[in-house]
Amino acid sequence: MVVFVNKLTLAGSSSDLERLYERIGDFMSEQPGLLRYQLVRSRKDEGVYFNIAEWTDPEAFETALQQERFRELYAELKPLIRGDAHLSDVVQEGRSALV
Amino acid sequence: MVVFVNKLTLAGSSSDLERLYERIGDFMSEQPGLLRYQLVRSRKDEGVYFNIAEWTDPEAFETALQQERFRELYAELKPLIRGDAHLSDVVQEGRSALV
Repeated sequence: MVVFVNKLTLAGSSSDLERLYERIGDFMSEQPGLLRYQLVRSRKDEGVYFNIAEWTDPEAFETALQQERFRELYAELKPLIRGDAHLSDVVQEGRSALV
Repeated sequence: MVVFVNKLTLAGSSSDLERLYERIGDFMSEQPGLLRYQLVRSRKDEGVYFNIAEWTDPEAFETALQQERFRELYAELKPLIRGDAHLSDVVQEGRSALV
């Protein structure tokens, strides 16, 4: 598994970004290899979001990015944010030991 | 649910950081309200990690940070990284529509 983490700093409107991410989420959830994703928004800086997505492997992720539909969505996304994207390996993970 | 995302930029050694995060993970997994956590490392910049942790609510997260044991671990962590921490709300989330 790999985890894609993108720190998004708003350059456009938050409602435009959130509407666009609904469409990106719909697209991504139908791509082979996507496991789960979250778009989260910082409480201390409302101009900061993180897109966090778990993929089975880097190849599945790259294939999704190459789809024509994603390129269209990405062209709409680009003016709305400044990105800081990191495809990442899991070093450690865990769950509650209490349940 | 809230998601704590901390972008960690290495200031010390990666092995020291990873060893310390094992102890932090062990501590966190026994705190009420912790659901799951991941420590991930960027493939494009090995000096960049993200700590991502899902908590039931902000109060549970704050309570964990106030524990004496966490303060000790945090004192060891501080010289190893530069942090960029954001307690965040989930705006959107989803899973694969294919399985």
